[in-house]
Amino acid sequence: MAEEPGVEVESPVTSRSEQQAPHFLRDVIFHGKFRLLKALTPEENVHSQHGLYFQDGERRVDYVLTYSAKKPGGSRSGRQSVHLLAENAVARSFRRGPHGRGPRQQQQQQQQQQQRRRPPQGTRDPVHPPTSPAADVEAGGAGETSNGHEDHKAFRREEFEGKLRDTGLELEKDDTKISGVGFVKIHAPWNVLCREAEFMKLKMPTKKVYEVKQSGGVMDKISSLVSKVLEPLHPHIEEHQPKNIKHLSHTFSREKQHLFDLSDKDCFFDSKTRSSIVFEILKRTKCKAKYSMGITSLLGNGVYTAAYPLHDGDINDSAEPNDRKLLYEEWANYSVFYKYQPIGLVRKYFGEKIGLYFAWLGLYTQMLILASLVGVIVFLYGCATVDDNIPSMEICHPRNNITMCPMCDRVCSYWKLSSACGTARASHLFDNPATVFFSIFMALWAAMFMEHWKRRQMRLNYEWDLTGFEDEEDHPRAEYEFRVMQKSLSKDRRPQHKMDKLTCQDRLPAYMTNIVMMLLMIGVTFAIVFGVILYRISTKAALHMSSNPTTRNHAQLTVKTTAAIINLVVILILDEVYGAVARWLTVLEVPKTDKSFEERLIFKTFILKFFNAFTPIIYIAFFRGRLVGRPGSYLYVFESYRMEECTHGGCLMELCIQLSITMLGKQLIQNNLFEIGVPKLKKLIRYIRSKRGSYKEEERQKKLQRYETDHFLEPFAGLTPEYMEMIIQFGFVTLFVASFPLAPLFALLNNIIEIRLDAKKFVTELRRPVAARAKDIGIWYNILRGVAKVAVIINAFVISFTSDFIPRMVYQYMYSPDGSMHGFVNHTLSYFNVSHFQEGMETMDPLHLGYRVDICRYKDYREPPWSATPYEISKEFWTVLAVRLAFVIVFQNVVMLMSDVVDWLIPDIPKDISLQIHKEKILLVDLFMKEEQGKIQILESKSSTGGADNCNKGNNSTIAHPRFGPVTSNTEGV
Amino acid sequence: MAEEPGVEVESPVTSRSEQQAPHFLRDVIFHGKFRLLKALTPEENVHSQHGLYFQDGERRVDYVLTYSAKKPGGSRSGRQSVHLLAENAVARSFRRGPHGRGPRQQQQQQQQQQQRRRPPQGTRDPVHPPTSPAADVEAGGAGETSNGHEDHKAFRREEFEGKLRDTGLELEKDDTKISGVGFVKIHAPWNVLCREAEFMKLKMPTKKVYEVKQSGGVMDKISSLVSKVLEPLHPHIEEHQPKNIKHLSHTFSREKQHLFDLSDKDCFFDSKTRSSIVFEILKRTKCKAKYSMGITSLLGNGVYTAAYPLHDGDINDSAEPNDRKLLYEEWANYSVFYKYQPIGLVRKYFGEKIGLYFAWLGLYTQMLILASLVGVIVFLYGCATVDDNIPSMEICHPRNNITMCPMCDRVCSYWKLSSACGTARASHLFDNPATVFFSIFMALWAAMFMEHWKRRQMRLNYEWDLTGFEDEEDHPRAEYEFRVMQKSLSKDRRPQHKMDKLTCQDRLPAYMTNIVMMLLMIGVTFAIVFGVILYRISTKAALHMSSNPTTRNHAQLTVKTTAAIINLVVILILDEVYGAVARWLTVLEVPKTDKSFEERLIFKTFILKFFNAFTPIIYIAFFRGRLVGRPGSYLYVFESYRMEECTHGGCLMELCIQLSITMLGKQLIQNNLFEIGVPKLKKLIRYIRSKRGSYKEEERQKKLQRYETDHFLEPFAGLTPEYMEMIIQFGFVTLFVASFPLAPLFALLNNIIEIRLDAKKFVTELRRPVAARAKDIGIWYNILRGVAKVAVIINAFVISFTSDFIPRMVYQYMYSPDGSMHGFVNHTLSYFNVSHFQEGMETMDPLHLGYRVDICRYKDYREPPWSATPYEISKEFWTVLAVRLAFVIVFQNVVMLMSDVVDWLIPDIPKDISLQIHKEKILLVDLFMKEEQGKIQILESKSSTGGADNCNKGNNSTIAHPRFGPVTSNTEGV
Repeated sequence: MAEEPGVEVESPVTSRSEQQAPHFLRDVIFHGKFRLLKALTPEENVHSQHGLYFQDGERRVDYVLTYSAKKPGGSRSGRQSVHLLAENAVARSFRRGPHGRGPRQQQQQQQQQQQRRRPPQGTRDPVHPPTSPAADVEAGGAGETSNGHEDHKAFRREEFEGKLRDTGLELEKDDTKISGVGFVKIHAPWNVLCREAEFMKLKMPTKKVYEVKQSGGVMDKISSLVSKVLEPLHPHIEEHQPKNIKHLSHTFSREKQHLFDLSDKDCFFDSKTRSSIVFEILKRTKCKAKYSMGITSLLGNGVYTAAYPLHDGDINDSAEPNDRKLLYEEWANYSVFYKYQPIGLVRKYFGEKIGLYFAWLGLYTQMLILASLVGVIVFLYGCATVDDNIPSMEICHPRNNITMCPMCDRVCSYWKLSSACGTARASHLFDNPATVFFSIFMALWAAMFMEHWKRRQMRLNYEWDLTGFEDEEDHPRAEYEFRVMQKSLSKDRRPQHKMDKLTCQDRLPAYMTNIVMMLLMIGVTFAIVFGVILYRISTKAALHMSSNPTTRNHAQLTVKTTAAIINLVVILILDEVYGAVARWLTVLEVPKTDKSFEERLIFKTFILKFFNAFTPIIYIAFFRGRLVGRPGSYLYVFESYRMEECTHGGCLMELCIQLSITMLGKQLIQNNLFEIGVPKLKKLIRYIRSKRGSYKEEERQKKLQRYETDHFLEPFAGLTPEYMEMIIQFGFVTLFVASFPLAPLFALLNNIIEIRLDAKKFVTELRRPVAARAKDIGIWYNILRGVAKVAVIINAFVISFTSDFIPRMVYQYMYSPDGSMHGFVNHTLSYFNVSHFQEGMETMDPLHLGYRVDICRYKDYREPPWSATPYEISKEFWTVLAVRLAFVIVFQNVVMLMSDVVDWLIPDIPKDISLQIHKEKILLVDLFMKEEQGKIQILESKSSTGGADNCNKGNNSTIAHPRFGPVTSNTEGV
Repeated sequence: MAEEPGVEVESPVTSRSEQQAPHFLRDVIFHGKFRLLKALTPEENVHSQHGLYFQDGERRVDYVLTYSAKKPGGSRSGRQSVHLLAENAVARSFRRGPHGRGPRQQQQQQQQQQQRRRPPQGTRDPVHPPTSPAADVEAGGAGETSNGHEDHKAFRREEFEGKLRDTGLELEKDDTKISGVGFVKIHAPWNVLCREAEFMKLKMPTKKVYEVKQSGGVMDKISSLVSKVLEPLHPHIEEHQPKNIKHLSHTFSREKQHLFDLSDKDCFFDSKTRSSIVFEILKRTKCKAKYSMGITSLLGNGVYTAAYPLHDGDINDSAEPNDRKLLYEEWANYSVFYKYQPIGLVRKYFGEKIGLYFAWLGLYTQMLILASLVGVIVFLYGCATVDDNIPSMEICHPRNNITMCPMCDRVCSYWKLSSACGTARASHLFDNPATVFFSIFMALWAAMFMEHWKRRQMRLNYEWDLTGFEDEEDHPRAEYEFRVMQKSLSKDRRPQHKMDKLTCQDRLPAYMTNIVMMLLMIGVTFAIVFGVILYRISTKAALHMSSNPTTRNHAQLTVKTTAAIINLVVILILDEVYGAVARWLTVLEVPKTDKSFEERLIFKTFILKFFNAFTPIIYIAFFRGRLVGRPGSYLYVFESYRMEECTHGGCLMELCIQLSITMLGKQLIQNNLFEIGVPKLKKLIRYIRSKRGSYKEEERQKKLQRYETDHFLEPFAGLTPEYMEMIIQFGFVTLFVASFPLAPLFALLNNIIEIRLDAKKFVTELRRPVAARAKDIGIWYNILRGVAKVAVIINAFVISFTSDFIPRMVYQYMYSPDGSMHGFVNHTLSYFNVSHFQEGMETMDPLHLGYRVDICRYKDYREPPWSATPYEISKEFWTVLAVRLAFVIVFQNVVMLMSDVVDWLIPDIPKDISLQIHKEKILLVDLFMKEEQGKIQILESKSSTGGADNCNKGNNSTIAHPRFGPVTSNTEGV
């Protein structure tokens, strides 16, 4: 049907004996010939759905490889070089002997030489084998033209494509309107799909359906009611089948294909399965160069520039309905923010791995609703009780005119405690008994979230037919193979045993670099935090010394605001730097597989970003105000700056401010500004450029084929950044939640946008990722667990050390004369005799308050000046400390125990799923047994004999004849 | 060949159309006929290897079912009843219409009636549906004869056996010399084995072998050297194949059977696989009674009395070589205690589950070697440094004549601290800085053990071809089905929807009982501990008051010894009681599957036994001596007995004594005495009885068939008791290791015996268990992890609170004038003014020491009498407490972090295994691809066409034709 004269159809034809030469010839012919054609007629274009199909309009394009070709503008020479190259290749292949050994070695030498040179242009993919300087030197002088390079690459392509054809794939090359880019379209015919599906052990739905029973109890009625109420929250996506009917799934196997509904072979494997099957073949296929090159090496060396499957279609209103458009309308859309995600469709389109990410994100966001509700209630409780709080009332009461020691040396003077009334009241908002409850709640919430995720994951695994699928060791990465090749080259003189792996020794330098760099980076973080502290101390000191009273009054505010902004900016910058450093370090390590690369990268990135985000916060929570010293013997940094103190309300207030600024700033700037703004900016630039430069850009784009438009999209760079962002956020939500109960609310608001933002990115801005199967979210789960564990400990310390919860309790139950909180403020303040100030450090304005001060007060548990051991740490201090520590132990162990109990009470596999799995197993055995019986009957009716050695037939005959022979012999016996 | 006239051969013949009647007939014939024969000739007997084969000597007995038959002594009537029954059945089945509905319903009614009656005799198996009293009442009055019962059972058996034959199994009944027991031997023919192996997704070795590469690095040389050194430690078991050659495994499938080496079909599936296949069929096969009855229900109702596979042969020296004999010689033998276990052979004979238990036990024992070595070193360090220990030197030094307050009221007098010299020195053995190191070491050791076990498990999974195997929900237990049936019966009047599960509501009473009983049992444990405390206090008081000075001197020793023995006896008795209670409670719960039954039972048993074993120890470690009060205001129990104090050396010493007595006692008595002694006793009783009673017992046993001898063995009751014993021991080894560094050594010695003891039990005393596949040790791993976690916390508390480590540190770094330990003893003792004793409580013999005492000392941190707040808790107390608590926090978190790091550093899957799995995957794909090519070539040579809809053929034709059609069309195009 597509046999138009001159349109070349790559047929599903391969023969192993004559691989390379004919392909070369054909491609040359093809390239030459195609110049004669203008373009496809519009009808053809519609028929092949803008490049979703081969030229014949029947075979679907399952995968596209691109390579850089000569520009058609100055293409005469380019095409000539292709001609030349092809001729060379043909000549070479003809020169080859019957076994083709001699010339191949020659080729290999040539390839080897060329490999040693660095690929000329930077490739899109971060994957490119590091060429060591030594190899460069070896390659030596003679500079060949880039033509030689291109020749070499074309040759490698030919080899690779030949091998692909050997595996049964069908390839088509096509002329394109995009200059400098060549496209190889790959189609996997039915037989290849079947074969690979069998190898990959894909589970496919069989014809057999069964009803999922609703057991009709009270619970089911409730759940059906709930689902009816939630109906409007579900996206408008029609299901193919009623909800309570499920197809029995079975691992696909060609021998058992009668089980499957193969009426529509084009649709049996959906587009994501087809592309992942092709990708599997691509990964397996290796060019036999000096070291075997798979698709990743070829991409890394620039032999191919990109490899991607095609999107299902356009998302314009005018486009025909397709999954992508449906996703765009029902998922990647801010107007449906309140709805559930169509996870099934996401999985169908993007594969399990991405489906799991969005499912996880969805569950996390759902769980945040609960957390933010409780958080808001806790915050409101704080607001409501602020007027009943005795300590802040005591501070604010004008009668309690406690004279406090100066806040800084010399320039500051004594001050009245009642002036700290505002902060004291504000700090009650975050420092009240409800926060203790809230942090316990959040620890359990985290445990519940984990458990729920495990269950959701299990349910998805079942629904997506992944039960029984096992992650297998992946193919080695290109860089790894390259390094192994290098190593075996350098040791080739030694007795021949093939080096097939990198030992620890080979990796030692990389490991050392890793450790040193990681420590250095963490050191940098610490240094910056320390720098900000110094900035704060010195600026405050400078402002205090200022003669302008307004400046002095606003000193506190100015310093805090600028310091927080500096902190935020530094965190944002370092985040990018650390991301790059972590990637660089991981590349240095040369991990073996992609999975291990990803895990190591994630681990390093996580460590660095975690330290970056949380070091300033940890400083404020646990160190600020602890190392102050006491009046008369303050602690000084650089011998001139006194260490920072917290305001009277305690450090919790400051922790809360820092936390909210960092969290909100990060979310607003990093997520929304960067993620929304940058694409918008890019579009603007593209628009301006298209106006200025090639005018027809826009017009051309309309006529572009699917594979060409997809080529302009960004390549998919993995889910790591998306997960990382969420994990850091999870850290903000759980780690210091005792000090900032509104964190879950902010996270929730962010995530509602985030889901749709990510969805938009995946649907409109990225090339379609290859569908990857995955049973779980991998290392992220462990990181989440780790964060949740650390959260328990940190919250225990925040409550007991940063907040005033424990001192209040101790006062109330041990020291208070009437069991109330009255007198607590007085109890926490120690006495200082002003005559004991060091010389030159006493305030310059002792009469600032209008009266002479003999004794001033400061916040600490120390002996008064009149005791036997003045200014020594008092018994109260040790008592409070012991209670604080005891609280930490109790809190940590109780909460951990409760988390474990939650973990243990909620079964990992939902009950209905485990029942259904069991039922399916029984149904399957039934099915096979019936089939067996059926076969026997057929055999019986045919009455075929013949004792084949074949088990299958052997059986059947044994079962088939039954009763006739032996039973009669039996009766004979009688 | 076995066609001797009159010997009935059950042929592999079944026909679905005429199921029951012919079987009945045949069995009747068979029973009748067999009386005519005397016995097999000796030659036949040898040929059929004493009952390992059917009478034809060819078909292996894969499984045996036994039932209680009439005794041959009074058997005339018995056999007649069988005749009658058979006639009835035949008549009934003839009366049956073409659809057979009417009579079946009738049958069912009858069955139902009989079900409601309790099975007449207790069955060996613990599995028997609890018949509720209500059902009993329903069954009502009319007492039928036991004959009716037997009829019914025989009928049920016939039905079941008919169904078994339908599945393709072959059955043989045989006369036996054992009175009252009938045997049904089951053979699975080749076709059934193939079919079931496919259903069970068994992985079997293929013909394809490959070499496991030794990469020849330095590590490998070392490892080969090590393995050479360890050579004598390996058991003498020849391997079939060289070590570095491995068969590629693939899931067995009849379509792919050309992959497998089927030259010897009898050996392809080994005996354990065959029996597990038969067991799988047995579990699946259900009698359609009122509720469907599987094999477990039939066993529970006494329809069958036992079901077991056969051992491979005899273990006498004269027996032919077989796996069992080999195991007996090379494994179940005390003389090879120093050798590795032949785990591969154990797995081959007993299956994966039991193999994993012994592998786990072996690894645990190996790891104990390291732990006991370090433990002994730590103990020796304590011994060596006992003379350098300043505190004990100070106590012992006669110059430091500190006068201590009386140990008891009135009758006791003041005493000199130097008299506690002995205990002080002894306590140093266990209370020195090395124990801190040791408990950290043991926490890491536990983490290492876990990790190593995960790796070993993974390696075994790979070697045993279990990768990819997934545990599936098992069939429901008989009791569960019975309860569901009962429930649906009682609700049958309501609109028909089938009740197919028990809801929470149904189980609520059982759950409540469970909780109440568990709490009660734990309460009993606490009560007993408290009782022992009371015993100790009161006896001591009584002995102190004794007029006999010898009695008074030995009071301490007498009380301690008797109390410890009472404790031990109580623990031993309660252990048995708790085991029974846990089982009873679990039966009450009616768990759905065997797995869930096992898990619930284990959980309950563990909780109870754990509390039982460790409550007294926890009391001594953390409570004893803490609640004493102070001189002048002691704490009294029942207003007359003062609470116990520890001796001056601290409670650690007493903890150590209690721990060693409990642990050693439990091991010696429970494990060795019970496990060795009881079987010996049984043998003795049997010997005596055989002498007295039936004289020919022994002689007869020699002539018994395999299935008959195995019938006399104990049934296999699960691995729970074995694991439980080891877990409790693991608790002793890890939980309080800070106080008793020799625990690992004792555990090691015990385990070396334990392995061989268990081995002997499995090989000689138990019926062969059905091989169960398992990937891991299940819930036990979680329990181990839990124990290891708790161990960290408990050790932290033991070090900081029970030992004197922290007070010593605090003294040395905070209070010591010269930074040494001199003066520590004085620092820990508070002052008491004897005039402050309560009236009537002062000692009756104030001049006991020869001088008048004004101030006596006691061990506590309290203010002296001359302070402003006499006898108040002092600042030192709070300081020490804070440091103690801080130590707990630091220790717990550091050790947990280190464990996590160990967990993270050691990969779960050994590298070589993951490499090999990857390699196998590639090899397998290669193999299939080659096969595909081969097929194509064959097809090509046949040049068969025909566009079959078949995918398989469809492909081949597409690939088969290649190049000819399209290539030519291509050239045509040009």
